[in-house]
Amino acid sequence: MARTPARTPVWKSIAATLEGEIAQGLYRAGEKLPTEAALAARFGVNRHTVRRALGAMAEAGVVRSRRGSGVFVEAPPTEYPIGRRVRFHQNIRASGRLPEKRVLRVETRPPTEAEAAALGLAPEALVVVYEGLSLSSGTPIAHFTSTFPAARFPGLAARLAETSSVTEALRLEGLADYIRAETRLTAERASPTQALHLRLREGDPLLKTTGLNRDLEGHPVEHGETWFAGDRVVLTVAHDAPAEAQ
Amino acid sequence: MARTPARTPVWKSIAATLEGEIAQGLYRAGEKLPTEAALAARFGVNRHTVRRALGAMAEAGVVRSRRGSGVFVEAPPTEYPIGRRVRFHQNIRASGRLPEKRVLRVETRPPTEAEAAALGLAPEALVVVYEGLSLSSGTPIAHFTSTFPAARFPGLAARLAETSSVTEALRLEGLADYIRAETRLTAERASPTQALHLRLREGDPLLKTTGLNRDLEGHPVEHGETWFAGDRVVLTVAHDAPAEAQ
Repeated sequence: MARTPARTPVWKSIAATLEGEIAQGLYRAGEKLPTEAALAARFGVNRHTVRRALGAMAEAGVVRSRRGSGVFVEAPPTEYPIGRRVRFHQNIRASGRLPEKRVLRVETRPPTEAEAAALGLAPEALVVVYEGLSLSSGTPIAHFTSTFPAARFPGLAARLAETSSVTEALRLEGLADYIRAETRLTAERASPTQALHLRLREGDPLLKTTGLNRDLEGHPVEHGETWFAGDRVVLTVAHDAPAEAQ
Repeated sequence: MARTPARTPVWKSIAATLEGEIAQGLYRAGEKLPTEAALAARFGVNRHTVRRALGAMAEAGVVRSRRGSGVFVEAPPTEYPIGRRVRFHQNIRASGRLPEKRVLRVETRPPTEAEAAALGLAPEALVVVYEGLSLSSGTPIAHFTSTFPAARFPGLAARLAETSSVTEALRLEGLADYIRAETRLTAERASPTQALHLRLREGDPLLKTTGLNRDLEGHPVEHGETWFAGDRVVLTVAHDAPAEAQ
């Protein structure tokens, strides 16, 4: 079937140009593109044509339009494996990005009923609470709260405030390895505070995980709740063949 | 330290009465409670006291207030294990509820690029698409779309329309067992159609899973996307020790 070679429509070539500029890093993830009017002037077309180009880019997941505030460059979501060893810094580096944790709060206080139950603590025991933000190459991807038995790790609060890494702080407290047996997942709306921290809108969907880490003898060492920004992270779970099956 | 025994505040005893009636099944999950005015009349208190009781019940996750429409009984979320063998009917029965699938659409059509890539199909191959709803004791908990290679399962479309169960339909087509190697998870907002199907509000948080099922020789047999109602389901993932570690 012979076809006459079609000329590329103008809106397509505008989309290709902008996508090329995004790929080259001229506009980075989370940044706002110029206004429709500015783009129309730059490409010498009317706004309808610009809108068509931006619409196609939005459909392809390259940009996202936020009503009333403009068109923003989307970051491809960070792939984040959850399994027996969940290690934030390692996970983010494996996806080719720069990991960072920001401390919001480290405090020592009595546990809530749920925390005492999860960690197997007496009500009069104390817990160290670490609340913070996880960032991937500068973009906040998660808000978390972790709780640890204070008696077992007397220097933990100071270490966490210093290093911000849980793995590193626990290592400095003498715990070389820990393991997660189960993760529970659900979806929630971002609270006003979480929206602020994660640079989202209130009510935006968050992927919430709850997990208990244990030392190699099975004693609970960390109870963690993490709220991932739904559009910035894909959690991946590998379903290994159970040991007894092989 | 001696304490004078405190009388139970009225709002607390109202909350306890209503929670008892919910536990006995007088008000069931998803049902609307009587109005504040009706409850105030019933208990012989003012509406402020009723509101305090309902507020405490909402905080405990027993009811949920929906602006402008009233206070509704919350169902405790269904626990739904995801692993190598994800079987809907089995999972729901294990949580003590009644599983049901509702067919929205079964059709045979050419695959999208993404479907062809996932299932390893040539672009001219056909896929069977099954779109439906998953219910747990009458409450819709998920909206799903599954795609199967049509050439391999010639009778599948008819079987699915008949049984509504994927496991059963595949068994009738000669596939006794299939396995999932990986699940990908993210959070999304409910679209207007999904909100309607799942009896949610548009924009409510959904937990989205994507998974590929393979037969025991490793050939892809089903590519599935499922959107779980975030407040009705907790997905649980067991992190088994990898086989080679033992």
